[in-house]
Amino acid sequence: MKQLSSSEVAQLVKGELLGSSQNVSIVAVASLEDADGTQLSFLGNDKYAPQVKESKAGIVLIPSDYTIEDDKCYIKCDNPSAAFSLIIDHFAPEPVTFEPGVHPSAVVHPSATIADGAHIGPNAVISKDVKVGKNSVICAGVVISEKAEVGEDCLLHPNVTIRERCLIGNRCIIHSSTAIGSDGFGFIPRKGGHKKIPQVGIVVLEDDVEVGSCVTIDRARFGKTKIGTGTKIDNLVQIAHNVEIGAHCFIVSQSGIAGSTTLGNYVIMAAQAGIAGHLQVGDGVTMMGRAGVTKDISPGQTIFGFPAVPKKQYIKQNLRIKKIERLEKELAEIKKQLSELS
Amino acid sequence: MKQLSSSEVAQLVKGELLGSSQNVSIVAVASLEDADGTQLSFLGNDKYAPQVKESKAGIVLIPSDYTIEDDKCYIKCDNPSAAFSLIIDHFAPEPVTFEPGVHPSAVVHPSATIADGAHIGPNAVISKDVKVGKNSVICAGVVISEKAEVGEDCLLHPNVTIRERCLIGNRCIIHSSTAIGSDGFGFIPRKGGHKKIPQVGIVVLEDDVEVGSCVTIDRARFGKTKIGTGTKIDNLVQIAHNVEIGAHCFIVSQSGIAGSTTLGNYVIMAAQAGIAGHLQVGDGVTMMGRAGVTKDISPGQTIFGFPAVPKKQYIKQNLRIKKIERLEKELAEIKKQLSELS
Amino acid sequence: MKQLSSSEVAQLVKGELLGSSQNVSIVAVASLEDADGTQLSFLGNDKYAPQVKESKAGIVLIPSDYTIEDDKCYIKCDNPSAAFSLIIDHFAPEPVTFEPGVHPSAVVHPSATIADGAHIGPNAVISKDVKVGKNSVICAGVVISEKAEVGEDCLLHPNVTIRERCLIGNRCIIHSSTAIGSDGFGFIPRKGGHKKIPQVGIVVLEDDVEVGSCVTIDRARFGKTKIGTGTKIDNLVQIAHNVEIGAHCFIVSQSGIAGSTTLGNYVIMAAQAGIAGHLQVGDGVTMMGRAGVTKDISPGQTIFGFPAVPKKQYIKQNLRIKKIERLEKELAEIKKQLSELS
Repeated sequence: MKQLSSSEVAQLVKGELLGSSQNVSIVAVASLEDADGTQLSFLGNDKYAPQVKESKAGIVLIPSDYTIEDDKCYIKCDNPSAAFSLIIDHFAPEPVTFEPGVHPSAVVHPSATIADGAHIGPNAVISKDVKVGKNSVICAGVVISEKAEVGEDCLLHPNVTIRERCLIGNRCIIHSSTAIGSDGFGFIPRKGGHKKIPQVGIVVLEDDVEVGSCVTIDRARFGKTKIGTGTKIDNLVQIAHNVEIGAHCFIVSQSGIAGSTTLGNYVIMAAQAGIAGHLQVGDGVTMMGRAGVTKDISPGQTIFGFPAVPKKQYIKQNLRIKKIERLEKELAEIKKQLSELS
Repeated sequence: MKQLSSSEVAQLVKGELLGSSQNVSIVAVASLEDADGTQLSFLGNDKYAPQVKESKAGIVLIPSDYTIEDDKCYIKCDNPSAAFSLIIDHFAPEPVTFEPGVHPSAVVHPSATIADGAHIGPNAVISKDVKVGKNSVICAGVVISEKAEVGEDCLLHPNVTIRERCLIGNRCIIHSSTAIGSDGFGFIPRKGGHKKIPQVGIVVLEDDVEVGSCVTIDRARFGKTKIGTGTKIDNLVQIAHNVEIGAHCFIVSQSGIAGSTTLGNYVIMAAQAGIAGHLQVGDGVTMMGRAGVTKDISPGQTIFGFPAVPKKQYIKQNLRIKKIERLEKELAEIKKQLSELS
Repeated sequence: MKQLSSSEVAQLVKGELLGSSQNVSIVAVASLEDADGTQLSFLGNDKYAPQVKESKAGIVLIPSDYTIEDDKCYIKCDNPSAAFSLIIDHFAPEPVTFEPGVHPSAVVHPSATIADGAHIGPNAVISKDVKVGKNSVICAGVVISEKAEVGEDCLLHPNVTIRERCLIGNRCIIHSSTAIGSDGFGFIPRKGGHKKIPQVGIVVLEDDVEVGSCVTIDRARFGKTKIGTGTKIDNLVQIAHNVEIGAHCFIVSQSGIAGSTTLGNYVIMAAQAGIAGHLQVGDGVTMMGRAGVTKDISPGQTIFGFPAVPKKQYIKQNLRIKKIERLEKELAEIKKQLSELS
């Protein structure tokens, strides 16, 4: 079993060893609440400060402004969260490795191109004219349809589907049960039977995109639905046809973006947010949790509520409602004065 | 490479060739913003009118009321969106085709019936007593459980699951990772351990139903959960047990319908809407985005908000809040008058 | 075909046979609205009382306080819903059975341990060092990654994914397309490219947990994301990394819980609810549909709205808005009086 002495930890995190019981070793990490004497914990958020004293952790990583009061072993460091991450990585189990090659149970069409170092897992299906780049890992049960292309160093987790002709960049990660390139939701409404509008475009994921589980990114009506470089998408997100998302955005869980909407770079959509179709959201916009966007948003704004408005306006709206009670009291007072007057 | 001259386009869309540079050919389609001189674009939404002049498109399809001002090649037509669709279809890549027959890696139970012309893709699983109709395509990784039946001319995309005894009509399309016929969420709440209520009913999809990706349609407690003819369901939608949806509805992404609720025909649920259990929603009702329905809705209504109310009432509610500021000012004025009076 | 006479039904449900046409047999069950003379129905909810008289059901199960008025066959019983369940079970089709053993198309790593009585379905993938307990059923297309463990008597429906090292207890049920143990959504935000924070923890499902379809339960940053004994999770739910849910909770469809939040025992989250990260929700809390929790919630509370507040406060807020109209009228009256006075 791996173990680290308090001085080894201090050295690893470039921290200062403090407290009266410094001669301790740890074999794992845990939260302040769960840790025992063989485990290291950390104070990463002031909210948890009261838990430090009560924690049974063998070692606690603390920020430079924390005043120690008891006899635990402390290590003071600039960024306890980052320091904790280093220790987590030290104790992390070996990551799963995937050997290069095609598992005998996988079905790979003879016209497909599988680059050197790529792994095609058990029962995966690689269709006609598909290309898989160098060192990419296609896990068990993944299906890649005709002419789709996956770049280098990608990781497609089990049971992902990539539909025909979609293009996945380099170093992309896609989690289980996600569907890339399903048909956009497009119909000509008609009494007696709506008519399906063919969805002949594709989905493009640029480099370094990560997509969570059970995410749906629909192919374009024509042209492409695009996810920009370095954008990270959480679980259960809906991206409709012809959406274009810029670089380095965060799209948090259960959010949805309707058709043909465009997001700039560094946009953040918090959880359960939504954006209507055919809108433009500028660079650096932050949508708070559950924000529902119904208009274009200019760059740099932080927006709240549904219909979503900038922070100032949102606070004003909420204050308005709180004012009613005061208005009522004032009115009663006035009525009293009036009746005295008349 | 396919190409079309401006006069060929005009003929195809039955439009009128206009503008000073009509001798142009195109090889693809694109949006006004993205198009270059070898591509055709269109003005389908007044919102984008300012982009027309700046567009570098070789040809632009315009509506009959648009006044041309520059020297591009224009084609005036009744419905530029529909006309554009014709051109998209002209340039669309060949659709993926699926040859009749069972892929050798598929697992088909000997008791299953696979009709002529049907395609069973790689690693698909067709269980005991399942029936697959004529010309239906069951893609890679699809699992169809015991006694389920799929009609004719259906298309089940990769990694779909159809649970036991569920019935899929003709010409249905089901997208990836969708689960049809999972157990309804039914328990008898009990201290010490809730008791599962067996869900012995089924799901019935009538003809011409389309279901998006990562959709969940639960089997009935008894009897059936039913999706009516021609209804179209978008991605990430939840349909609970014993729900019955009428014909030709649109259920847009991330909406949810709780148990035993009934929807009429031609109902529209916009994105992220929700309906509580045991309710009745009449024919032709439209629920706007995020509407949360907590009562029966009579036919033909358009409803907004949560708890959802008809449009008039919703506007009134919102106006109310805006009134507060005015009330406040009036009150201050009155107080002033009062103090002058007394 | 199975059938039951009215007296056999009365005996089965320990009820009292009433009404003038008691000599009837039934062969199936149905709702009051759908039932015909060969079917049994029930009155389980006062809301449906008007349907009883009009129902064509052969037999209707009624509660003890219902007064019969026509000549149908009635059976009075303490709990018509529970009684109806017994009759459903009587007529339920034989449940699908899964024979012990490994299907020849399944891929089972030689280092995996498959206990006696377990079923490994067609095209399932069982990776290195995985353990599957006694009598557990792993359906077609399921993928279980390295070192994950599934307890005894579990049922994993088709196309489920269990990622490496995750631990599934005994008697757990997991529905199709669900992903257990995908990476938590953790990044260090950085201009030019966010840095992925390794997610080296696991997911633990204790005993008797049921998880719906298209659910995502992410693995912990370190340590574990935990779902307590007997908790039931509906479809399309998001559980983020390091969440801990207590015993016997109900998490209804399309709800989401952000990272590191803790729920006590017997918590109910109704549909489309959400909880922000790093919060604590006490035992026995009920969140109503769409509630959006932004603060810790003390035990036993019932909360509404977004930001979620206790019932009393929520009603007060809504009443406030309704008061505006009254305030407006009073103000107009006062203005009139004032102008008369001055």
